[in-house]
Amino acid sequence: MTIADRWLLPDGMDEVLPPQAARMEELRRTLLDLYYRWGYDQVMPPPVEFLNSLLTGTGTDLDLQTFKLTDQLTGRMMGVSADVTPQVARMDAHSMKRQGPARLSYCTNVLRAKADQYQGGRSPVQVGVELFGHAGEQADLEILNLALSSLQVAGGEEIHLALGHIGIYRSLVQVAALESAQERAIFEALELKSPGDLGKCVRDSVSDTTLAEMLIALAELHGGVEVLDEARSVFAEAPPAVGAALDQLESLVEGVRSAYPDIDLYIDLAELRGYQYHTGMMFAAYVPGYGQAIAKGGRYDDSGRAFGRARPATGFSMDLKLLASLAVEPPADDGIWAPADDCPSLRDSVNTLRSQGERVVQALPGQRTGPEQHRCNRQLMKDGNGHWQVSFLN
Amino acid sequence: MTIADRWLLPDGMDEVLPPQAARMEELRRTLLDLYYRWGYDQVMPPPVEFLNSLLTGTGTDLDLQTFKLTDQLTGRMMGVSADVTPQVARMDAHSMKRQGPARLSYCTNVLRAKADQYQGGRSPVQVGVELFGHAGEQADLEILNLALSSLQVAGGEEIHLALGHIGIYRSLVQVAALESAQERAIFEALELKSPGDLGKCVRDSVSDTTLAEMLIALAELHGGVEVLDEARSVFAEAPPAVGAALDQLESLVEGVRSAYPDIDLYIDLAELRGYQYHTGMMFAAYVPGYGQAIAKGGRYDDSGRAFGRARPATGFSMDLKLLASLAVEPPADDGIWAPADDCPSLRDSVNTLRSQGERVVQALPGQRTGPEQHRCNRQLMKDGNGHWQVSFLN
Repeated sequence: MTIADRWLLPDGMDEVLPPQAARMEELRRTLLDLYYRWGYDQVMPPPVEFLNSLLTGTGTDLDLQTFKLTDQLTGRMMGVSADVTPQVARMDAHSMKRQGPARLSYCTNVLRAKADQYQGGRSPVQVGVELFGHAGEQADLEILNLALSSLQVAGGEEIHLALGHIGIYRSLVQVAALESAQERAIFEALELKSPGDLGKCVRDSVSDTTLAEMLIALAELHGGVEVLDEARSVFAEAPPAVGAALDQLESLVEGVRSAYPDIDLYIDLAELRGYQYHTGMMFAAYVPGYGQAIAKGGRYDDSGRAFGRARPATGFSMDLKLLASLAVEPPADDGIWAPADDCPSLRDSVNTLRSQGERVVQALPGQRTGPEQHRCNRQLMKDGNGHWQVSFLN
Repeated sequence: MTIADRWLLPDGMDEVLPPQAARMEELRRTLLDLYYRWGYDQVMPPPVEFLNSLLTGTGTDLDLQTFKLTDQLTGRMMGVSADVTPQVARMDAHSMKRQGPARLSYCTNVLRAKADQYQGGRSPVQVGVELFGHAGEQADLEILNLALSSLQVAGGEEIHLALGHIGIYRSLVQVAALESAQERAIFEALELKSPGDLGKCVRDSVSDTTLAEMLIALAELHGGVEVLDEARSVFAEAPPAVGAALDQLESLVEGVRSAYPDIDLYIDLAELRGYQYHTGMMFAAYVPGYGQAIAKGGRYDDSGRAFGRARPATGFSMDLKLLASLAVEPPADDGIWAPADDCPSLRDSVNTLRSQGERVVQALPGQRTGPEQHRCNRQLMKDGNGHWQVSFLN
């Protein structure tokens, strides 16, 4: 075996070196502190669970993303967490059973068997929050505001927020009472935002022409917030649930605009990402220079049903690795270099400086590298009176 | 499938709920900040690597502990990290290639296929440091001091430090030039601290009676620091490496005593834990009420050889989950309850309080739980002049 075979890392399984690791640690703290101040309690889900706990009602996407392991103790199949959201839903429903709304936050490594289309790596650090137990749009608005606040504290600029609502498409196909193959074809055409294919599929399978026109119109209903007005006229005769979804979106738009007037808002009523588990509003936030969404979230009611307690739920998550790359200013050298001397007075000085929060790097006997190689800008030296003093390096 | 099947967690794969998760997060920060102040730079090893990177020269124990995964992209076998130490050695040797001593810290989840004899769970959070590039006892002393300092900041009291040196046993068996089956038998008898078995094995296989007596004596050489004096006389005719190891231990004892006079020191020259990779001093720290070591470390020179750069190395690690259980005082309620009101003046008050670091939990419309259930000790209320004021709850 060659040495290269030994240090090669699997694709997308990245290590994080200094100073980027310090940047990630700092951002982790900033975000978890932000969530704490908003009333969110941190939880740490297990990195591995039995497969049937991890894959409840989340469809096949997550299954394909989940690394499988055999539990040597029981012979049962386990999975490495690929998405924390269903785990936190289990914790809310079963482990905590809190009365009333529960606000939970997390920041943890997850693993993905293959990198998904939009995310880079297979070892993201998932950070986010979930708000359980409240079905109202105030909960959704809190989540949206907290996501935007997260991006701001992370140094995100020119944030672009895309907002949708799965209830519109869901209500229309429900009324159309399609066969599953027909629905699948429409879904795929809409996901590809392909008006030609969509028109053909819809006309082939939906006999009610008003309903057919509404489904076809969906593909074009994306753009600025004026899309909501357009949608009002397109869906004038749609089922009431469609109007209710538009009401919710309008109210969320108003709430976000009032709290974050500088955010660039975008409406996409044909967005179907997470169709398998989302039940209400959905959003994705973007910043310039990143092709993929930097934060994703939405409502997914009935979470926890598989664990015996259906609860309304809304939340969002981000990849801390991606987020930490937004601000890449390397830290300035900050440290005090101490000589390789074991006299008690030096040890006392070093202890005192460290207890004051200073970074003190002590040389080891025979060491050939100096303060510069160890990011020190100051040094400890004995003055004429035998006292240890800190002085700046030239 | 029953609901119980869904929430049951695999044995040893624990979730961490509030308030314990907050305690762990706080301790994580305290420790990483401590290491930063001592000049250690944080790194984040990948959670998964190819198996031949993870299992270099570490023997079969780690292999048995490592969950195996097939990489769907390459078909190669990967392992989930069960011990961060070889990963950090790879990062030092290959990824960073720093000149001179390199000080690295980490805090990360690891997974174990089966719980080892001494540690409880299969999903510890491994936290620790490694000091590469210096072979002297000053580096070992720094590591010992930092381990003790870690236990002190974590709230450990009545700390008990057991110190050993693998070089003593290693030198004796080397001189004895044993066959591997003979060495294995002696090793096992010594590991079991079984003088009867040991005496038999040694007399069967070591013809030099002086050497045989020294090997047999090892099993009894544990106790207070006076064991070192005893060892001086037992090993008076031993190979020079034995004397050098005793010199090192004496110097470490002196260093620890001078920096941490209250630590209870214990010498164990028959300790063989980590024989497969340790090369010098080894230690384990204990606190009352925990049967297992709470911190373990030692010297393992030649780390990084498999990655093209052999380096002296010394370090230690702990399980953050175990460590966080040392101090279990639940935090007092601390938070401000805000009503479910979307008036802009309330929003401003909430924003201001949060930016001052306060925890503010805002009620959601229709919410039936109150401030007490959400760990709030104060509330925001409008005074007679229409200003929002914080007041303590009765």
